[in-house]
Amino acid sequence: MQNFVFQNATKIIFGKDTESMVGKEVQAFTTKVLLHYGSGSIKKSGLYGRVCASLKEAGVAWIELSGVQPNPRLSLVQKGIELCRKEQIGFILAVGGGSTIDSAKAIAVGVPYQGNVWDFFERKADITQALPLGVVLTIPAAGSESSNSAVVTKEEGWYKKDIGSELIRPKFAIMNPALTLTLSVEQTMIGIADIIAHMTERYFTQVPNVEMTDRLLEANIKTVMHNAYILYADPQNYDARAEIMWAGTLAHNDLLSTGRIGDWASHMIEHELSGIYDVAHGAGLATVIPAWMQYVYKENINKFAQFANRVFDVEPDFDAPHLTALEGIKRFKQFYHSLGLPVSLKELGVPEDRLEEMAAKCTAKGPVGNFKKLSKQDVVNIYKLAR
Amino acid sequence: MQNFVFQNATKIIFGKDTESMVGKEVQAFTTKVLLHYGSGSIKKSGLYGRVCASLKEAGVAWIELSGVQPNPRLSLVQKGIELCRKEQIGFILAVGGGSTIDSAKAIAVGVPYQGNVWDFFERKADITQALPLGVVLTIPAAGSESSNSAVVTKEEGWYKKDIGSELIRPKFAIMNPALTLTLSVEQTMIGIADIIAHMTERYFTQVPNVEMTDRLLEANIKTVMHNAYILYADPQNYDARAEIMWAGTLAHNDLLSTGRIGDWASHMIEHELSGIYDVAHGAGLATVIPAWMQYVYKENINKFAQFANRVFDVEPDFDAPHLTALEGIKRFKQFYHSLGLPVSLKELGVPEDRLEEMAAKCTAKGPVGNFKKLSKQDVVNIYKLAR
Repeated sequence: MQNFVFQNATKIIFGKDTESMVGKEVQAFTTKVLLHYGSGSIKKSGLYGRVCASLKEAGVAWIELSGVQPNPRLSLVQKGIELCRKEQIGFILAVGGGSTIDSAKAIAVGVPYQGNVWDFFERKADITQALPLGVVLTIPAAGSESSNSAVVTKEEGWYKKDIGSELIRPKFAIMNPALTLTLSVEQTMIGIADIIAHMTERYFTQVPNVEMTDRLLEANIKTVMHNAYILYADPQNYDARAEIMWAGTLAHNDLLSTGRIGDWASHMIEHELSGIYDVAHGAGLATVIPAWMQYVYKENINKFAQFANRVFDVEPDFDAPHLTALEGIKRFKQFYHSLGLPVSLKELGVPEDRLEEMAAKCTAKGPVGNFKKLSKQDVVNIYKLAR
Repeated sequence: MQNFVFQNATKIIFGKDTESMVGKEVQAFTTKVLLHYGSGSIKKSGLYGRVCASLKEAGVAWIELSGVQPNPRLSLVQKGIELCRKEQIGFILAVGGGSTIDSAKAIAVGVPYQGNVWDFFERKADITQALPLGVVLTIPAAGSESSNSAVVTKEEGWYKKDIGSELIRPKFAIMNPALTLTLSVEQTMIGIADIIAHMTERYFTQVPNVEMTDRLLEANIKTVMHNAYILYADPQNYDARAEIMWAGTLAHNDLLSTGRIGDWASHMIEHELSGIYDVAHGAGLATVIPAWMQYVYKENINKFAQFANRVFDVEPDFDAPHLTALEGIKRFKQFYHSLGLPVSLKELGVPEDRLEEMAAKCTAKGPVGNFKKLSKQDVVNIYKLAR
C-alpha cells in the first residue's frame, strides 16, 4: 500500500423526498445561486418545481442557466462564467447528472479566474479558487456528485479534457433514488457501465498489498452487477435504484483509490471516441474496457485471475491462471452484452477511418495508463481489438 | 435502504513517516495545543520526540497532559478541561489509541460548556460546541480517529458511557502503520476484535435491501481476518499492519452504517464488563459477541446464513439455513479462539456473581439493541451463554 491523503467532505443527503431539503442546504452558503441544468426533463418530472419551491421557502434567489448537453460544452461554461460575474453569484446549484455537475464545476473555477477557463484543462494554470457548489443528482453514472474532477468538451477541435481539484468537490449532494425511476433502461445501463469503469480503472493497479481496497472494489462491482440485472428486468425497482445510486458515488469518491495507483487509460481512450463521435461516455467505456483488458492482462495475470474468481466466480485454474483471467474478461464482456450495451466500435456506431488520429490525440502528451504504459500504437491496437 | 445523511470530513494522512506532517496540520488551526497522551510508551518509541519536533518546526506551542488509561477516566478529562481553560488552548492533539482520543474528545466538549461534562454522557445536555481536535494514531482498534463518538468511564460507580456529535470528529488523523509494529500480539488481537465488532454491530440489522453495505462489511471483515492471521504469525509485517489500520478506520467512520440501523447491544453488554472489571474492551467484545449471536440468530436466520456463507465460506444448507447460520457462529468463535482471544467470561477473568447487577445497569434505561430488543433477563441470559 502506498502512502496517501484522503479527505472527502461532501455531505450526502440520501433517500426519498430529500430534494425538499435543498433550500436549507444552500442557505448555509448564500442567498443567490446559479441554478444550472440540462434540457427540460427536470420540468417534466416536476423536480424543477420542487427545487424552486424549496429555494423560495429558504429565501434563496436564483438565476437560471439551462441547456447543458451530454459531453458538456465549453461555450456554455463560458456563458455561465459571465452570468455569475454579472449577477454576483456566490454558489452554483447543479440539478442533473454528471454533465450538468461537470459544467457547474468548470463554471465554478472560471468565475474567479482572470484568464480563459480552458487554461485549467490544458494544465496552463493551477486552480486556486472556486465558487462552492451543490448538487441534486438525477443520473447515477459519473460520480461527479462527490468527486474532485470534471470533464468538458471544447467544440473547436472536439477536445475532451478534465480538471481536478479539491476545490471543486461539491459541498453537498442530494440523492433521491426515486428521481432515477424515469431513466430508460438504456440510460440506466450506460450509467452502470460508467460506474463499473470507475472501479475497474482503480482495481487494475500494479501496486501490491492493497487487499482491503481490492475487496471493497469487488464488493461494489458485484453489487452494481446484481442490481443492473434487477433493473434490466424491472426498471421501477426503488431498492435496486438506491443500490446503484449510492454505489455510483462510492465508485468515484476516492476512498477506493486509497493507497493505489489507478490506470485511467481506458477513460482517455474513450474520451477520443465521445469527443469526436459524441457517443455516450458509458457506452464508449463498455466498448473500450474489455478490449483494454484483453490487451494488457499479461502484465499481471494474477490480478486478472483474482478479478475473475472473486467477481465472476470463475473457478481458479491453478496450473493455468491465464485461462482463469481470460474467462473473467469474457464474462465481463458478456455481462455488458447481456444488458444491451455495445461491446464493439461497430455496435457503438463508430467507423474505423479515424483510429490513428484518435490514438495520436490520446497520446499527444506521451504514453497513457499505469497498469501498462500505452504508446500510440498500443492505443491503435486496442481500438482495433474493439472493432 | 433507509434515508440517511452521511458526511465524514476527517482528513486521513496515511503511511510511513507521516507523523512528521503533524505540525503543519495543526498550524492550520492554532499555534497552541494541548498535547494529550497515555503512558510513556510514545517516549520510549521516539514518537513523542518526532511529534514535538514537528510542532516546534511549525511554530506551534504545546501544553502536555499525559496519563490516559485504557477505559479513559472522567477525572483526567476534568483535569484537561481546566488546563485548556487556564492556558487558553484552542486545539487538542491526541497522540495514542482510542482511549487517548476519546479522552481528548471529552475534553473538547467540556471546555466551552459551563456545566459538568458528564451531563453530556447522561444526555442531560446537548453538545453545541467543541474545541477542534486532531490525532496521531498508535493503536488500530477503536476507530475513534474519524468517528463522532467517545466513551469515558466515571470512577464513582464505574459507569462507562458514550457521547456522540459531529463536532467531535477529528479534523485530521495521521496514521503511520509502522507505529503499530511495536504492539504485542495480544494488544493487536484485542484491537482486531474491536474492529470486527464495529462491523458486526452494523452488519446485523433488520433493515432490508442494504446489499452494498452488506458486501462492503463482508469485504472488510474478510480483510481484517486474513491480516489478523498474518500478524499472529508475523507481527512485524508492515503490509498487514497497514491493512488492519485502514480497515479499522473504515469499520467505524459511518460509511458502513449508511441506510442501516446498527444493533450495538453487544457494546452495551460489554461496557458493563469493562466498566466494572476494567478488562480490555476488545477482549470483552470477543467474549460477548458470539454469545449474543447464539442468542439472537433466530430473529433473522437468513442474515446469519449469508454471513456464514460470504465471510466464512460455509456452504449453504438450503433446506436447513439455521445450520448454515450456526456453523458461521461456530467458526466466528473459533476465529477469535485461534488468535488467543478469550471467548468466555472465565477466560476473560470475570466472575459470575454480578451478572444480574450488570444486566440491570445495562438496561436501566430500557431494552438494548435493535436486531432484537433485549430486556434485563435477555442480557443475563447472554452473560450466562458466555460463561
